[in-house]
Amino acid sequence: MLNYRDELDKMPSYDGVEKSYRIKVNANESTLNLPPLVAERVLNRLAMTAFNRYPNEEYYSLVEQIAKNFSVDSAQILLGGGSSEIIEKVFHAFGGAGRKVVYPQPSFSMYKIYAKAAEAEGVPFDLDERFDLDADAFIAKVKEVGASLAVVCNPNNPTGNALTPAQVEKIAASIDCAFLLDEAYVEFYGRSAVNLVAKYPNLLVARTFSKAYGMAGARVGYMIAQPDVTRMINKCFMPYHMNVLTLAAADIVYQMRDEFVPRLQMIISERKRMFKRLENLDGVEVFPSETNFVLIRLARAQELKDYLESLNIGVRYFSPSAFGLKNCLRISIGTRMENDAVFSAIRFFVEAGQ
Amino acid sequence: MLNYRDELDKMPSYDGVEKSYRIKVNANESTLNLPPLVAERVLNRLAMTAFNRYPNEEYYSLVEQIAKNFSVDSAQILLGGGSSEIIEKVFHAFGGAGRKVVYPQPSFSMYKIYAKAAEAEGVPFDLDERFDLDADAFIAKVKEVGASLAVVCNPNNPTGNALTPAQVEKIAASIDCAFLLDEAYVEFYGRSAVNLVAKYPNLLVARTFSKAYGMAGARVGYMIAQPDVTRMINKCFMPYHMNVLTLAAADIVYQMRDEFVPRLQMIISERKRMFKRLENLDGVEVFPSETNFVLIRLARAQELKDYLESLNIGVRYFSPSAFGLKNCLRISIGTRMENDAVFSAIRFFVEAGQ
Repeated sequence: MLNYRDELDKMPSYDGVEKSYRIKVNANESTLNLPPLVAERVLNRLAMTAFNRYPNEEYYSLVEQIAKNFSVDSAQILLGGGSSEIIEKVFHAFGGAGRKVVYPQPSFSMYKIYAKAAEAEGVPFDLDERFDLDADAFIAKVKEVGASLAVVCNPNNPTGNALTPAQVEKIAASIDCAFLLDEAYVEFYGRSAVNLVAKYPNLLVARTFSKAYGMAGARVGYMIAQPDVTRMINKCFMPYHMNVLTLAAADIVYQMRDEFVPRLQMIISERKRMFKRLENLDGVEVFPSETNFVLIRLARAQELKDYLESLNIGVRYFSPSAFGLKNCLRISIGTRMENDAVFSAIRFFVEAGQ
Repeated sequence: MLNYRDELDKMPSYDGVEKSYRIKVNANESTLNLPPLVAERVLNRLAMTAFNRYPNEEYYSLVEQIAKNFSVDSAQILLGGGSSEIIEKVFHAFGGAGRKVVYPQPSFSMYKIYAKAAEAEGVPFDLDERFDLDADAFIAKVKEVGASLAVVCNPNNPTGNALTPAQVEKIAASIDCAFLLDEAYVEFYGRSAVNLVAKYPNLLVARTFSKAYGMAGARVGYMIAQPDVTRMINKCFMPYHMNVLTLAAADIVYQMRDEFVPRLQMIISERKRMFKRLENLDGVEVFPSETNFVLIRLARAQELKDYLESLNIGVRYFSPSAFGLKNCLRISIGTRMENDAVFSAIRFFVEAGQ
């Protein structure tokens, strides 16, 4: 046996090909590929891209665009391979033996893994039965355990609900440790806390191109924080961690982000429609959502998941041991036709079962 | 001050835009972008790629291709963002407090950084005055310090020389710890040790698309080892660490790798030509190379670097404190025209100085 790092054998492995579905609403992806005009310009840009040179100015070009959009200094922006890599590195930066990271549960399931990978202790904070976060209790918990990092996903995945900017500010103002706000779904909510970064030196905001911009496959996210913070987090990234194809594509996508507004509006309006329709089904509980998905709870959730799978519809089912998520399914919002098909299948299942 | 991980403040930062040059022979990149036929097929493939979905079967498709080429099981292959990410994760896997990593010096300068990032102790092993590695002394050093990981870059960067497969095998057979063989430049040498993986469960071979395949910007590399080893190293990678643009492009490039043979032959023949011409210059020492670059030594190396820069030619200069590399310059092999321009400039400088 080779002399592996302590605890490495206890880390989970990630392999196995995910199943593809006729209607794939299990991963909160954009159901639509890039808008055709954007795709065309992305491909034109890729045709002019030097694959053979290490990435260089492409990184800074995207950083500058993002900085300009938020009226911050470019020293306040870092790019990562999806907000996943940003979050991983932030956990690493505040991790290590004896350090504690507080995050809500249920929330993004990777927080637990990132804490483990960072050799930190993950301290879950329980949301209430409506999945609301009690900001005062959260603040107290962070202080009580002496956390080096507190994390909130806002709006929250997989529950869909959101803290108000005032609640976010209260947390930022009340804790001394680093506060990572994961805004992966914020474009569907519209109330970002990026503007608070100027005021709170402990606030780090992670954003992604994966959801609103339909770029999950390209792996691009960014972090906004004060320059002292980005300087330290940047030390966790190795040179050339971003590739030039992704950078070139993201540069065009960000330039053309207005092209994504109609589909954002479509997703939001479809989410509202799905919420109302699901709400009217007997025995189905739907949770209010500010994201591109809805969470439902019903007694026969696992059977419904199997039934939908038999129709080649993929939704997200949670293990019964996942805190607070027993009998819950998460359903991403697709196109109107996809949503209708998903809803009809759920209604049929629910009504047939009565 | 936020509660950062121990020692994080001592990690170096990597920012600042690299200078671009009219003739850029400072980074061992392929001086040519993809062959036109390959580029066309890459772009066609990208036009059909779902940017909006998390990468999935694209990862395994490339893994299977590589496995088939080497007649190994696909469980023996891992992909990374360049061999850089592979090496970073291998260091991480065998790192942690109290663990030691032995690597030659001078060699790839990042080994020192990866050791630090892995919170391991980096133990450099000195090459001799001709930059040769004494395999017996290396083996003794690895055993003496009780290393968890030994690393050899073969052929070696930045010196260009190579161990024979027999020497590599001797090291693999004689040490018990993990042995990472970094074959970033092996396509220019032609004598890979991948076939030894079947015999030595401690051997991990890292390869890259960055040099021979002109894909430095795309960030793609791979590791070949026995399945038990890849299973453990895979735990260091987070899900979706590879992006779909890179995977799709690399899949085509690997399918079409025969298209790269003429340029490999060109680079090798140009390297030999440059070696002979440089060898004939008074006061210039050239080191034999099995790579896509040559290393030279001359008294006024820094002045020559400045002179070349004034001509908008970028070469790699080493800090005088870099072990064994005082007064050395590393020059990547470009096209015949580029090499002629670089050589003429060096000859002019050398002859003018006499």
